[in-house]
Amino acid sequence: MERRKFVFLFEEADGTNKKLFGGKGAGLSEMTRMGLPVPPGFTVTTEACVKYYENNQKLPPGLMDEVKAKLKVIEKKTKKTFGDGKNPLLVSVRSGAALSMPGMMDTILNLGLNRKTLEGMIQATGDERFVYDAYRRFIQLFGKIALGVDEKKFDEILNETKQRLGARYDTDLDATALKEICDRYLEVVRAETGTPFPEDPMVQLELAIEAVFKSWMGKRAVDYRREFKITPDMANGTAVNICTMVFGNMGADSATGVAFTRDPGTGENYLYGEYLVNAQGEDVVAGIRTPKPLQDMQKEMPEVYRQLENIKKILETHFREVQDFEFTVERGKLYMLQTRNGKMNAEAIVRSSVEMVEEGLISKQRAIMRLRPVDLEQLLHKRIDPHYKATAIAVGLPASPGAASGKAIFDADEAERRGKMGEKVILVREETKPEDIHGFFAAQGILTCRGGKTSHAAVVARGMGKPCVSGCEELRIDLKAREATIRNTRIKEGDAITIDGTKGEVYLGELPTVDPEIGGNLMKLLGWADEFRTIGVRANADTPEGALKARQMGAEGIGLCRTERMFNAMDRLPLVREMILAETSEKRQEFIAKLLPMQKADFKAILKAMEGLPVTVRLLDPPLHEFLPTTEELTEQLHALKSLAVILENGDRITEAMRFLDPAFREALKPLENLVSDLMEVKGKESAKKLIQKQEETLRKVREMMEVNPMLGHRGVRLGITSPEIYRMQIQAYMEAIAELTKEGVNIQPELMVPQVCTAEELKWVHRMVEEVQQEVEKKYDVKVKCAFGTMIEVVRACMRAGKLAEVSDFFSFGTNDLTQATFSFSREDAENKFLPLYNERKILQDNPFEVLDVKGVGRLMQITTEWGRKTKPNLKIGICGEHGGHPESVEFCHKIGLSYVSCSAMRIPVARLAGAQARLKEMEGANVIQMSSEGSL
Amino acid sequence: MERRKFVFLFEEADGTNKKLFGGKGAGLSEMTRMGLPVPPGFTVTTEACVKYYENNQKLPPGLMDEVKAKLKVIEKKTKKTFGDGKNPLLVSVRSGAALSMPGMMDTILNLGLNRKTLEGMIQATGDERFVYDAYRRFIQLFGKIALGVDEKKFDEILNETKQRLGARYDTDLDATALKEICDRYLEVVRAETGTPFPEDPMVQLELAIEAVFKSWMGKRAVDYRREFKITPDMANGTAVNICTMVFGNMGADSATGVAFTRDPGTGENYLYGEYLVNAQGEDVVAGIRTPKPLQDMQKEMPEVYRQLENIKKILETHFREVQDFEFTVERGKLYMLQTRNGKMNAEAIVRSSVEMVEEGLISKQRAIMRLRPVDLEQLLHKRIDPHYKATAIAVGLPASPGAASGKAIFDADEAERRGKMGEKVILVREETKPEDIHGFFAAQGILTCRGGKTSHAAVVARGMGKPCVSGCEELRIDLKAREATIRNTRIKEGDAITIDGTKGEVYLGELPTVDPEIGGNLMKLLGWADEFRTIGVRANADTPEGALKARQMGAEGIGLCRTERMFNAMDRLPLVREMILAETSEKRQEFIAKLLPMQKADFKAILKAMEGLPVTVRLLDPPLHEFLPTTEELTEQLHALKSLAVILENGDRITEAMRFLDPAFREALKPLENLVSDLMEVKGKESAKKLIQKQEETLRKVREMMEVNPMLGHRGVRLGITSPEIYRMQIQAYMEAIAELTKEGVNIQPELMVPQVCTAEELKWVHRMVEEVQQEVEKKYDVKVKCAFGTMIEVVRACMRAGKLAEVSDFFSFGTNDLTQATFSFSREDAENKFLPLYNERKILQDNPFEVLDVKGVGRLMQITTEWGRKTKPNLKIGICGEHGGHPESVEFCHKIGLSYVSCSAMRIPVARLAGAQARLKEMEGANVIQMSSEGSL
Repeated sequence: MERRKFVFLFEEADGTNKKLFGGKGAGLSEMTRMGLPVPPGFTVTTEACVKYYENNQKLPPGLMDEVKAKLKVIEKKTKKTFGDGKNPLLVSVRSGAALSMPGMMDTILNLGLNRKTLEGMIQATGDERFVYDAYRRFIQLFGKIALGVDEKKFDEILNETKQRLGARYDTDLDATALKEICDRYLEVVRAETGTPFPEDPMVQLELAIEAVFKSWMGKRAVDYRREFKITPDMANGTAVNICTMVFGNMGADSATGVAFTRDPGTGENYLYGEYLVNAQGEDVVAGIRTPKPLQDMQKEMPEVYRQLENIKKILETHFREVQDFEFTVERGKLYMLQTRNGKMNAEAIVRSSVEMVEEGLISKQRAIMRLRPVDLEQLLHKRIDPHYKATAIAVGLPASPGAASGKAIFDADEAERRGKMGEKVILVREETKPEDIHGFFAAQGILTCRGGKTSHAAVVARGMGKPCVSGCEELRIDLKAREATIRNTRIKEGDAITIDGTKGEVYLGELPTVDPEIGGNLMKLLGWADEFRTIGVRANADTPEGALKARQMGAEGIGLCRTERMFNAMDRLPLVREMILAETSEKRQEFIAKLLPMQKADFKAILKAMEGLPVTVRLLDPPLHEFLPTTEELTEQLHALKSLAVILENGDRITEAMRFLDPAFREALKPLENLVSDLMEVKGKESAKKLIQKQEETLRKVREMMEVNPMLGHRGVRLGITSPEIYRMQIQAYMEAIAELTKEGVNIQPELMVPQVCTAEELKWVHRMVEEVQQEVEKKYDVKVKCAFGTMIEVVRACMRAGKLAEVSDFFSFGTNDLTQATFSFSREDAENKFLPLYNERKILQDNPFEVLDVKGVGRLMQITTEWGRKTKPNLKIGICGEHGGHPESVEFCHKIGLSYVSCSAMRIPVARLAGAQARLKEMEGANVIQMSSEGSL
Repeated sequence: MERRKFVFLFEEADGTNKKLFGGKGAGLSEMTRMGLPVPPGFTVTTEACVKYYENNQKLPPGLMDEVKAKLKVIEKKTKKTFGDGKNPLLVSVRSGAALSMPGMMDTILNLGLNRKTLEGMIQATGDERFVYDAYRRFIQLFGKIALGVDEKKFDEILNETKQRLGARYDTDLDATALKEICDRYLEVVRAETGTPFPEDPMVQLELAIEAVFKSWMGKRAVDYRREFKITPDMANGTAVNICTMVFGNMGADSATGVAFTRDPGTGENYLYGEYLVNAQGEDVVAGIRTPKPLQDMQKEMPEVYRQLENIKKILETHFREVQDFEFTVERGKLYMLQTRNGKMNAEAIVRSSVEMVEEGLISKQRAIMRLRPVDLEQLLHKRIDPHYKATAIAVGLPASPGAASGKAIFDADEAERRGKMGEKVILVREETKPEDIHGFFAAQGILTCRGGKTSHAAVVARGMGKPCVSGCEELRIDLKAREATIRNTRIKEGDAITIDGTKGEVYLGELPTVDPEIGGNLMKLLGWADEFRTIGVRANADTPEGALKARQMGAEGIGLCRTERMFNAMDRLPLVREMILAETSEKRQEFIAKLLPMQKADFKAILKAMEGLPVTVRLLDPPLHEFLPTTEELTEQLHALKSLAVILENGDRITEAMRFLDPAFREALKPLENLVSDLMEVKGKESAKKLIQKQEETLRKVREMMEVNPMLGHRGVRLGITSPEIYRMQIQAYMEAIAELTKEGVNIQPELMVPQVCTAEELKWVHRMVEEVQQEVEKKYDVKVKCAFGTMIEVVRACMRAGKLAEVSDFFSFGTNDLTQATFSFSREDAENKFLPLYNERKILQDNPFEVLDVKGVGRLMQITTEWGRKTKPNLKIGICGEHGGHPESVEFCHKIGLSYVSCSAMRIPVARLAGAQARLKEMEGANVIQMSSEGSL
């Protein structure tokens, strides 16, 4: 087989073949073919690089002959000659792989300079200093990159010279000084490499090409590819672009600049960029002179600006994508040096997408594909102003996204008090409990020392859409002193702090924040997404407010309404506790009867809020002891009481005894304050004993209920079966809510779901109860009660028995939080605190499976379950209501395996809508679409 | 289609078709066809019964015509006539389904009696009293069963008559009295049913047949079938057997008896049974006269005895099974009334099986199939003498099988002290901990108040093969008073108790026990089983002694050697704790270095004990905090110390302060006795503070390590990766043990196994460590070290990733304990204590899945795993080392899905060997084999 050629003139290459010509080469070729003013040049293909490595790191035979042939063409075009002493051709050499890859060699400029061509250049430019400066840079860059000379050797000479001559900047050096430096540089190269610096431009070029190839296997490039999983089928080898040098520093009619075809920070449609007159590209980077905004060029170089405006249109029409390009103006003539898709932030992507569709530039599909769902999240939460620079004083877990500022307040009561006075507060606690809920309502955000992303604080904050940083372990709170410390920083109560729940960071002071952009453009884009999306999107919401918010976000129903939240409400928790600890079944029934109307009212409000859309209510899931104080708390209280009692026994009066008490004990007694003050009033040892007895009794009961592994314990349907009165109450409350709304003529679509099911018998058992209650309610209200019946799939055995469960279910809903735990046999809490970070670091696991659905393990189970379930019931509705339901990759997977809907927290619904549409489009088009990636700040 | 006939003479029926003729009918038919002396009779088929129900509970048309026709044949044979006034034919009517089923109607005797045939009978027997007695019984039985008259009505008359006449027993009533009773009985029937007692024998017969059919759907029979899962394809309807009456009470040349062809208690090969001269069958049951052993008949009725001896041989040769038969001798003539397979205890089944093979009666295969593996267990543990009747005072969980007696002792130290003095003790504790281990060694058995079948007590006891009853919740221990109570029974320390770990029962006093029978016959039988068995049988053993025991039991290797047991040994636990709590990595390394030689010595000893056989060592599995005291303990201690400190602060001297201390605190301080006495010596408040500080530090560390769900936490390979020094030490110890033994020329087959693996990356990580250590050890010893490398499959994700894991594994071993937990999402401990009993009771789950492998859920996963694993590596060795490995049904399942071996505790190895062979035989023969069921006591 005849070998393919390795070297292509820009006009010969294929601008759509980035794999062969690299991104940079493709862009140059494309622009050349479009007739844009690109300096003549050619590209050595990535194939040549592959051959170089196959060939034991030798340039493939014939390559340099091809290079020479192409050079000839360029010499002809430019009327300059490579190595010529009079009118020498200089070139730049740049690497360029299919994907942009930091760590590879970037650019060698001015290649072709030597003692002979120097003279020619001086003649041509009339600027000796400029040419020697170019030469100096060339020797240093070439010496370092192509010859492997330690850069420090060059820097030493430069610094020494500057010092000696009292020069502050490089620019202070004149031609003589630079000439001397060049001589000494050449000497260094000779000393270090044992041979003189190559004078022959062709040798320079050959070495430079080889250096580019070598940089492909440089450590940083290899690490980068491993990190981002760039496989050879995505990018294999680097191309080399050799391009005629043009100079923007040839006087007032010369310039250099970079531009975006639209504003990458806002998406606004105008030529955005900066330029410098009489400067080279690297001067912009060096930051010695401040570049001007491109608009200034309208006056300064109106003709060039007109050309640029024109090029902007040509580029966008051609690439149908916002372009980021580099240009140089040499003596009034404009040259294009590079173009590529512009990186933009999410806001800009959204705006430009919508406008480009409306301008007829791109299709709706393409607009939808441009925005990465993960970037969309930037738009959904308040964030710290990206222009504001500040250093975090501590980092915890990003438990609920968004930024918030306020006064640090250390308990919920105080937070509420200050909140009522109109102050902005951040609730700062060791950890939070249901009793702190009023503090959540009052606070802008929550910060805790302990607890993971599923801790009480995290879950409640996410439910309320408030920012939360949890597990901030460096934070120490001294409640007595009303202050906290983070390492050496002290935060007194009332001091302002800012938390960034998206990143898990904590800042001192009140940082400026930026409001979320969820305006018309995004809504329009998401509306388009909905036109293509086939997988449904529902919300997890437990309150009427949450339901309304979800609806605004575009939820098509509620996929998970957790009834335990209703148990945890402040006005109910005491009732719930009494119910759980009730001595007799009658007593328990009494408390249950009080809970029923409350729960009914909740259900009615949520169903109403979601009129016309389905609402899935899940029966109680957590173990009962979750509603009780912990044995630790109780034990501490008990011990404190006992200590007190002993001191009393010793003859002291209670007021004095309290003083003798260990401070920790005094703290422990706080929740019992009323009881203890009773004690103080009667001053009696007897009442101390009684108090102790009561406390011991409660402790005994709580202990009885404690479990070694609560995650694997007495919860969900297990609890429903052993304590049927609770489920019966919940079912009755729901059925009555349905009956009453049906009578009112409200269009509702209620669904009832059973948690923790592992066998069809459990489901049948609950279903019988539902039927019984349903009949009673129908009789009582004289109205038909309709309600779909389904099961969570969160126990592995349920997956294995999917075919059987489908017989008894109208729908399945994957609870991937629990299912992930069961599949991995580790709990989120324990894993995230103990070993998951190390596992991620060592790449034993790529992601945190509690955030990104583990497709290979959990996903496999889901796939099997879906297959088996639909085998029994082809139209079985199957959803997912774990936290993964709002994660883009996971949504895509759910679409692929044919789920009916995903359900996620209200704030993630836009993400799910977009991800759902993209999944469908990828499926339709075979994923041939470019996705933009945004940068957080520009 | 012409309908099949419903009625068959015994000689016409098919004795192999129990489904059609029922067990009893088949036996009678078979004996008739063999020429044995069966009274003439016939059988109404089960099909007729099915038709009866299909026919709206009416006898199928034509049935009674068939019955009449067969009766004619019998009349001809017996030369008697049904309903005849001179020489009447009387018959018995008995039910008989395919499977013996309590709760169905048993027998109506003397059917055909009426006022007319009475006279004929009196003439024929010359015994008026006998005939009226028969008549009375007939009316009562028939009245109750066929006519539905309340039995009490008859009893009242009988009792009234006896009282009136001063008769103590029925036998004290003379003919006149009986005649009067019969008259009054007939009157009762007329009054209750509204019609006279049927005089027509044919009507009697028709009603009796219908009554038998009806009993098939009686409540007890239906319940029984549900309970034992008897489906229609196993037994559908009952047959009715009508047989000519013969009388064993016609004088000194008449008799009745029951016999086994071999002793059902021992299996010994001789005619075993009892008989009564001049008696009817029910007299034996009534227990008024004591029956004689059958051997006495040799003298009393030598000819009949000779016939019985002959019949014994004929029966066994024919049925190839030990028979249990009934006979009657009427005036010197022997009649066979029934035969069936004899129920025997395990010992008898073993002996008879072996001897029947040696006599050439049955094949080895049949011998193997005769013994149910679950019955085999009877033979493997000491048990309470089945002849001894005692009532349990409490019931706990059967945590480790076998019976043991001894003095109740409430702590391990005392148990050890008494043990050394040669006393037999039972260690009785709230719960046990690693520190109690010396108490286990000293004790005959263990009894605990708390903890399930996987509690420390249960696991350690099973490992040692000692009986254990755990979770005996009624038991209360008062350590201070050195006594325990169970409800109202007080047990002082030193009182004798007996525990039955097979049943979970606790008895007062020392009950007689029976040694396990594990002699030559069983070994022979198991040897034959091994000839057929294809699935391997290994043992779970952690000590050299355990390994040796396993080998004696027939283990073909060790499938699971848990290294954590070695950490828990008394001499090591303090080292292990120091290691875990070490401040620095150097300090930790220091303790690890001390552990290494100990673990190496363990490994060497076990490998040596198993020379020639494979040994699978598992790396450390449990979380580290399992080796530490609990936070509860530490907190209690801390509080006690604080309390003490406060009192000291108050000015008291320590000795006095101790007196003021809460008694619970004094108890809590016991483990710190040394420290506290130091405190007392220096009397200082300062040292109290230091002590508190130290304690607080430990508590903090332990708290840091605590996990919310330890089962799902930082353990197994997760721990191995985060604290690599521990795994490295274990691997080094094992490799060095292998190297040293290899040098000594010992033939070893070491295997190394990683627990809790969920991804191939984990396995690769450990494997790299193994390779490193292996190379070091090979260098150090200058010898090749060979060791297979494999993984536990106990995490669901590992199942899903089986194909991938197989790439890195020489073998898989299913850890079905953990896998069951993960599949069901409930932990054994929490489930067994909280809801599993109710689940079983309500049939939501059939079995305890921690005892019987859940084939539909866990089994399905195992099947998938095996398929996927072998797809990657067709010869992949796959075993199971969970507790299910010793459960017969589970062994059968493992065989079916193609596992290479099962591994179970030493004591269950015989069970696994037998179950494995049976699984193979069932597969070969299509399960056409009869399995005997034993009765616990005879």
